[in-house]
Amino acid sequence: MDRRNTLGIDIGGSRIRAAVVSPEGSLLTRAEGVTPARASGDAVVEAVAQVVTQAMQGHAVGSLLGAGVGAPGPLDALQGLALSTPTIDGFRDFPLRDRIAGAIGLRTLLDHDGHAAAYGEWQFGAGRGHHNMVYVTVSTGIGGGAIVDGRLQRGRRGMAAHVGHMTLLPDGPVCNCGNPGCWEALAAGPALTAAARRAGFSDGEAVFAAARAGDPGAMAVAAAEARWLGIGIVSLLHVYSPDIVVLGGGVMNGLDVLHPAMSSEIAARAMPPFRDTRVVRASLLDNAGLIGAAALARDAFGGDAPDA
Amino acid sequence: MDRRNTLGIDIGGSRIRAAVVSPEGSLLTRAEGVTPARASGDAVVEAVAQVVTQAMQGHAVGSLLGAGVGAPGPLDALQGLALSTPTIDGFRDFPLRDRIAGAIGLRTLLDHDGHAAAYGEWQFGAGRGHHNMVYVTVSTGIGGGAIVDGRLQRGRRGMAAHVGHMTLLPDGPVCNCGNPGCWEALAAGPALTAAARRAGFSDGEAVFAAARAGDPGAMAVAAAEARWLGIGIVSLLHVYSPDIVVLGGGVMNGLDVLHPAMSSEIAARAMPPFRDTRVVRASLLDNAGLIGAAALARDAFGGDAPDA
Repeated sequence: MDRRNTLGIDIGGSRIRAAVVSPEGSLLTRAEGVTPARASGDAVVEAVAQVVTQAMQGHAVGSLLGAGVGAPGPLDALQGLALSTPTIDGFRDFPLRDRIAGAIGLRTLLDHDGHAAAYGEWQFGAGRGHHNMVYVTVSTGIGGGAIVDGRLQRGRRGMAAHVGHMTLLPDGPVCNCGNPGCWEALAAGPALTAAARRAGFSDGEAVFAAARAGDPGAMAVAAAEARWLGIGIVSLLHVYSPDIVVLGGGVMNGLDVLHPAMSSEIAARAMPPFRDTRVVRASLLDNAGLIGAAALARDAFGGDAPDA
Repeated sequence: MDRRNTLGIDIGGSRIRAAVVSPEGSLLTRAEGVTPARASGDAVVEAVAQVVTQAMQGHAVGSLLGAGVGAPGPLDALQGLALSTPTIDGFRDFPLRDRIAGAIGLRTLLDHDGHAAAYGEWQFGAGRGHHNMVYVTVSTGIGGGAIVDGRLQRGRRGMAAHVGHMTLLPDGPVCNCGNPGCWEALAAGPALTAAARRAGFSDGEAVFAAARAGDPGAMAVAAAEARWLGIGIVSLLHVYSPDIVVLGGGVMNGLDVLHPAMSSEIAARAMPPFRDTRVVRASLLDNAGLIGAAALARDAFGGDAPDA
């Protein structure tokens, strides 16, 4: 087996991050830069190349097995295309994988950021050792990835596990995707922020802080958020039958506040054989996508998994 | 490879069916009997053994590779247990697989009826040749199975793809499972029958017949049913990213009536890269579960798949 390190790249709507990652998931270097989200796809690739150059200081290209890139969807991960990313203007049917490969001189794999983070949490984080895991990130949107029967789910064009776009309320608030009542529209960061402001708080963090201090208004906002999270998770339990649900993203900074009401909602709604599924917080936090993208590249390009 | 036939067994809430099935999915024999749904689990096994005896006339036990059993869930398919089947009283933590194996003298595999039917449609029916397929059956309940990346999804305890128990309306009508607003509660046969009666029709079939003749009241009932079907399918597209959605079950006798409004709902709600997914009717109809259970056994016990 090949013991070389891999490069992980995480492209977000505001930041680009890159790191050299060991086969065991350790970050050996780390660099970041700003995403030129209003510029062309090629400008984004150029920014990626600059961040990669910083991250690779001290690591020759030949010392690396390849690169894994996580980016916001929808992507055609199998063809390496960014199809229509709402947060990055240049990502319209853009051949992201091959452009990055050309710019950095490494074999490159592209996958959804949610899949990469799921893979990272599964290989090295809170989902480690489980055969079936669902990862959900709740931040600006809701995304994720699913491991079923020991394999990351890809599906047609690699577009599986757009879990934030399950409809939970068909006549509900309109989602970023245009559909009324997606889970993302009901429970992602912006929905929480809006609910916080209606109750007189600045944002979700302020709600969590006040709820921890026993403020009834804050507790009500948190309970409503927890209810929507619980309802969505129940659908995921029934669809995927995971051993464990791993929750990441900024909203999970309030998981201590959210967990009791969320668990009650799950217990009330899930069918009995699904009720004992553990729901835990992600452990790699901001680095899950970076580490996971590197691990996807490690496994795609024949590297040595630590359990192998 | 082993070219022996397999035995398919389909246990439903009202009927037990069995057939000797060729490796290519042809029914060579077929028998059926009544399910003693109010009796013990052992009584059901005895009824299965009688139906199997009829189905095996002319086929020696030694001529068969093994048996595949599809049964209503929730099951622990991996352990071979019926956990708590609502429609069969004796199926409470009942070791169904091993009891049947003992009674019929064949290696036996147990899986959910929805998984078996999905496998049948994938191997021999409307999903043939696709790498990613979701099968949904809409009858007394809503069940199904998913093929992702060329594999039947099993999940923890083999309980994946309880697709009828996605919540689509959290304060909606209470489902058989106890949760308000499951897809099953909104769109399965009993919901359609109730809507039909409120509009002055005897049942769903009468609605479909009147809608085909242009009756506005019937068309409205059908459109409401089609809308709920479309909403649920959109969630499945986003979660599984299938190449094709295959629809079975009695309600699909009206698919010609339902398809236009269902397709409109899908086009309005699905994210653009998912909108062109084909949605078609199952082709094996009542035999999908029987043929699929046999094919699951063929593949589990080392038989010769026709594509191998």
